[in-house]
Amino acid sequence: MAPHPSTPPHNTPPHDAGAPARPRVTINSDLGEGIGLHRFGNDTALMELIDVANVACGYHAGDPDVMDETVRLAGEHGVAVGAHPGLPDVVGFGRRRMALTPGEVESIILYQTGALSAFLGKHGLPLNHIKPHGSLYGMLAGDEALMEAAAGVAQQYGVPFFGLAGTAHESVCAREGVDFVPELYVDLNYAADGGLIIQRRPETTDPAAAGDRVRRALGGQSVLAVDGTELEIAFASICVHSDAPNSPDVARAVRDEITRAGAGEPGAGT
Amino acid sequence: MAPHPSTPPHNTPPHDAGAPARPRVTINSDLGEGIGLHRFGNDTALMELIDVANVACGYHAGDPDVMDETVRLAGEHGVAVGAHPGLPDVVGFGRRRMALTPGEVESIILYQTGALSAFLGKHGLPLNHIKPHGSLYGMLAGDEALMEAAAGVAQQYGVPFFGLAGTAHESVCAREGVDFVPELYVDLNYAADGGLIIQRRPETTDPAAAGDRVRRALGGQSVLAVDGTELEIAFASICVHSDAPNSPDVARAVRDEITRAGAGEPGAGT
Amino acid sequence: MAPHPSTPPHNTPPHDAGAPARPRVTINSDLGEGIGLHRFGNDTALMELIDVANVACGYHAGDPDVMDETVRLAGEHGVAVGAHPGLPDVVGFGRRRMALTPGEVESIILYQTGALSAFLGKHGLPLNHIKPHGSLYGMLAGDEALMEAAAGVAQQYGVPFFGLAGTAHESVCAREGVDFVPELYVDLNYAADGGLIIQRRPETTDPAAAGDRVRRALGGQSVLAVDGTELEIAFASICVHSDAPNSPDVARAVRDEITRAGAGEPGAGT
Amino acid sequence: MAPHPSTPPHNTPPHDAGAPARPRVTINSDLGEGIGLHRFGNDTALMELIDVANVACGYHAGDPDVMDETVRLAGEHGVAVGAHPGLPDVVGFGRRRMALTPGEVESIILYQTGALSAFLGKHGLPLNHIKPHGSLYGMLAGDEALMEAAAGVAQQYGVPFFGLAGTAHESVCAREGVDFVPELYVDLNYAADGGLIIQRRPETTDPAAAGDRVRRALGGQSVLAVDGTELEIAFASICVHSDAPNSPDVARAVRDEITRAGAGEPGAGT
Repeated sequence: MAPHPSTPPHNTPPHDAGAPARPRVTINSDLGEGIGLHRFGNDTALMELIDVANVACGYHAGDPDVMDETVRLAGEHGVAVGAHPGLPDVVGFGRRRMALTPGEVESIILYQTGALSAFLGKHGLPLNHIKPHGSLYGMLAGDEALMEAAAGVAQQYGVPFFGLAGTAHESVCAREGVDFVPELYVDLNYAADGGLIIQRRPETTDPAAAGDRVRRALGGQSVLAVDGTELEIAFASICVHSDAPNSPDVARAVRDEITRAGAGEPGAGT
Repeated sequence: MAPHPSTPPHNTPPHDAGAPARPRVTINSDLGEGIGLHRFGNDTALMELIDVANVACGYHAGDPDVMDETVRLAGEHGVAVGAHPGLPDVVGFGRRRMALTPGEVESIILYQTGALSAFLGKHGLPLNHIKPHGSLYGMLAGDEALMEAAAGVAQQYGVPFFGLAGTAHESVCAREGVDFVPELYVDLNYAADGGLIIQRRPETTDPAAAGDRVRRALGGQSVLAVDGTELEIAFASICVHSDAPNSPDVARAVRDEITRAGAGEPGAGT
Repeated sequence: MAPHPSTPPHNTPPHDAGAPARPRVTINSDLGEGIGLHRFGNDTALMELIDVANVACGYHAGDPDVMDETVRLAGEHGVAVGAHPGLPDVVGFGRRRMALTPGEVESIILYQTGALSAFLGKHGLPLNHIKPHGSLYGMLAGDEALMEAAAGVAQQYGVPFFGLAGTAHESVCAREGVDFVPELYVDLNYAADGGLIIQRRPETTDPAAAGDRVRRALGGQSVLAVDGTELEIAFASICVHSDAPNSPDVARAVRDEITRAGAGEPGAGT
Repeated sequence: MAPHPSTPPHNTPPHDAGAPARPRVTINSDLGEGIGLHRFGNDTALMELIDVANVACGYHAGDPDVMDETVRLAGEHGVAVGAHPGLPDVVGFGRRRMALTPGEVESIILYQTGALSAFLGKHGLPLNHIKPHGSLYGMLAGDEALMEAAAGVAQQYGVPFFGLAGTAHESVCAREGVDFVPELYVDLNYAADGGLIIQRRPETTDPAAAGDRVRRALGGQSVLAVDGTELEIAFASICVHSDAPNSPDVARAVRDEITRAGAGEPGAGT
């Protein structure tokens, strides 16, 4: 699998021309998922370990003050920031499917991406990418018409789309000329068909198991689905969720494997 | 100060007729303030230490699933449950004043109290009282017309109102024939006029300082306002907030002082 | 079809013992669907024509002030009031399916029914029934586990459930011992399997066509599905929506047919 | 009063060099105030009569689909579009004051302006200006710290701010180097100090009275406050609200007076 050449975040380090060209692999994390007085509490620790933040935009989580604080923090850590639009459902944390039309999907992604862009503008950062959250991610993976609506927003903003290889995420981006960054997940299970099994509530991930999966995947080996099916997962970025209490430990395990494989340093080049 | 005779929660223990009649003092706590995946994390520990729960009703915090879970937990611990209606403002946690008319105040308290009553009905518990949250508490303390609207809801449900002695809380309840339970606060500061200084964000309270204040108050001594003014605070219940990380430690310190003074045991008599 | 004997609203007139016993058929309408400054504008006119109001409870429409105003108006017109709980989606008007668990369905119906009950208590009215709104109505019709959750709330409140004969609405109510009031719709189309085709946006209904459907149905004739299939629809109440501009004309046409058939007078007996 | 030279909307007509230089006066209207199925119903008629639309951004009114529809409609009519951010309060329509910090004011204006910008980008329109809605408008008029937060957003986007001459709107814009467009209101009353009396609910405005006020004002005469005080109102744009049923009649009366005074044609030059 070759990561898409045009999708590295803005903090991609210059490659040493003499070194063997190992594609860089980034870590991305869903951050800014607090609301009002509530926080998951891991954002600052994760900012030290990741390359790319997917920042919640107020629909499933996040509020304008949290967004401002999260974008500022990302800027200070040289972490690239993308929009992480979700379904309008704080109580369900955007993890309950809703029957939306393509027009509605386009409108909610436009709305949230625009809102985030205002905070990026304040802090002098560019929009790095768009990655849908939770059930919206799954809805777009399985429905080309919805995904076309999302791809249109990525096109309008001229940014890549983060998603799942082998799904409508990838096929529609290819067709519409939108840069696509395929992801590997280390804290969710894969179904036999390569789809992600999205959990309503966070489960603690064993950092060692996450590290194993990354080591295998970086070594070109297969990833195991829940039923033991061997999956080939193309990826250029690895996602670590922030809502599990030990998510910084998981991110650290992933970072260690990336470093061991010579596939990238955090914050490098910014 | 004599606690109002009709306001003990449903779990008041029968007094030993031979013992000196010491008025019982309860601990009340604002619980169920999670939303979606977010929790402050102290509800279970606090349920072991308190007598009365003020349960958030979905406007400033709480959602229907959190309400169900909180009422069930209270029932299991023999903790009496009251409605804790707030302003419609999750992002501000109900701690940003809003200009509402008396009719609007009545409507939002009715709505939230009714909603909570449905969960009480499911779990076979009576509504114990109404206590407004955050800025709504302060708005009612200072405005008789708004407080009359709130008192009407307490009257409709036939339950007492928890509030601050010496404010419109008390005077309107007296005039309208609503039982009034005056509170002492241990994790908020008092202004020189006896009003509470409501903080937007929780600050850690020193459990020893909270214990001191309770010991003084139970001993009939004054409480100090922020400027050193000595205040006489009438109270029959002591409030401990749940949004500070160490709130169970604060509740434990308060409980110890109540026990030492012979003013009540938690959960007794249920 | 015999209307369920225990389900007439509180304003059922005493039958003249000498008259042939014609089962009474009521008209029910979804009211109180305004929010803030917005109203559909038909509530007052419809109150003159109907027997039963299904009042929105704040999730898909309605707000506490609108609920108060609507319940008061119903009381003045002798119209019985039921809860009309919906999905938490004002933008989609509760007409976009959401993937909810049975526990979540129970919680949102409890919450909304309880909220409405507070306004009924204020105005001295009993809760007449529960009827789910929009996509929640359809979700419950097709899923027994979700419908069991809803039936539990009707049981707790001791009120009938309004729904669609031949669906899980009816079968679960029968099994759980909940009174069931089957409805006929005059402003929605039926699919060949007898299911309703729920529209996202109101379409104008021809009052004459609505009258025809009612006349046929009251005469024991079939109702035509969109593909011409002849359907036998059991019903004891006829629903008229309030969000189409000409909904009072539709209600008037329905009322005329009921009167002609000797199947009931509006507001009688209150 | 001279309208600020840099604030005409994008559809300013080229002046005939031989004509006497009469400053152009525009009509602006608050549009896109629907939500879900609800609309005030006047947007299309008003688009024919006005120069500038202040589009609701989802906090007090508007939703992503309404925003998309409104921006598209404005583009078709050559009407310039500005952001109309409000307080987060659909039920109160943004007309109930909330106690916000300057940081919170900045965040909610950023959020809403960014969201609107996404729809402008889709339809190929520039952001024309920022004008706060309802109580936020009044809060900023009377509080320099809050107004500085708002001015910062206008600065970031490089657009003028619409507001009330003689208030913090004007003084802070002057100090911060933000272009300021002063407004005249024809459907609200002025207090003796020149402040606007913001109504919670729309009242019907007499188009003749609105026309009179405009004629007087365009002729350099004073406007009368509710108590008869004569006010000198500096203005470059006239606001017509859209939530009163007869708002197109009011806009037409205003347009007639502007045309009579030779102060501008609608849609000209686009």
